[in-house]
Amino acid sequence: MMVLITYDVSFSSEDGKARLRRIAKICQDYGTRVQYSVFECDIDPAQWVRLKAELLATYDEEVDSLRFYILGKSWRSKVEHHGAKAALDLFADTLII
Amino acid sequence: MMVLITYDVSFSSEDGKARLRRIAKICQDYGTRVQYSVFECDIDPAQWVRLKAELLATYDEEVDSLRFYILGKSWRSKVEHHGAKAALDLFADTLII
Repeated sequence: MMVLITYDVSFSSEDGKARLRRIAKICQDYGTRVQYSVFECDIDPAQWVRLKAELLATYDEEVDSLRFYILGKSWRSKVEHHGAKAALDLFADTLII
Repeated sequence: MMVLITYDVSFSSEDGKARLRRIAKICQDYGTRVQYSVFECDIDPAQWVRLKAELLATYDEEVDSLRFYILGKSWRSKVEHHGAKAALDLFADTLII
């Protein structure tokens, strides 16, 4: 399943920057950063349970905002990217190692 | 149709802040801001053509990033919001005027 994660982390509280780093790190462990605070995570349901629990244990529900979009199977045909920093398309771009 | 729009606008070029304001304004004309640079636009295909054209005419393809996600009909059951600034749900929240 493809889960799109978007977030706003507030710097109004002291540890805002630390929370931002931790949230980005958690998302990075499970998926691809496609924009500054937008991640695409191709994961199975068990991973999704863990990822969500880690994020909800990390963010500050008073001041931060987390949004999760479960994209359908044909999500790839319904996404368009324009401009800089196109995500590395793990499914199409061949990795030359 | 529900179109999710996410963007990163770079401040590296001079008119970055102006572009950010214009891009946000364009999205606001067509939809709901759900996070700082995330909008949900419930529009018809003709509106989508106009919205996309306005955005592509405004952003700087060298340094900005625009992502469009066409969400399926049942998108509302596949979105979760946690934390601050829940979007006004135009479909469920009754507006008392």
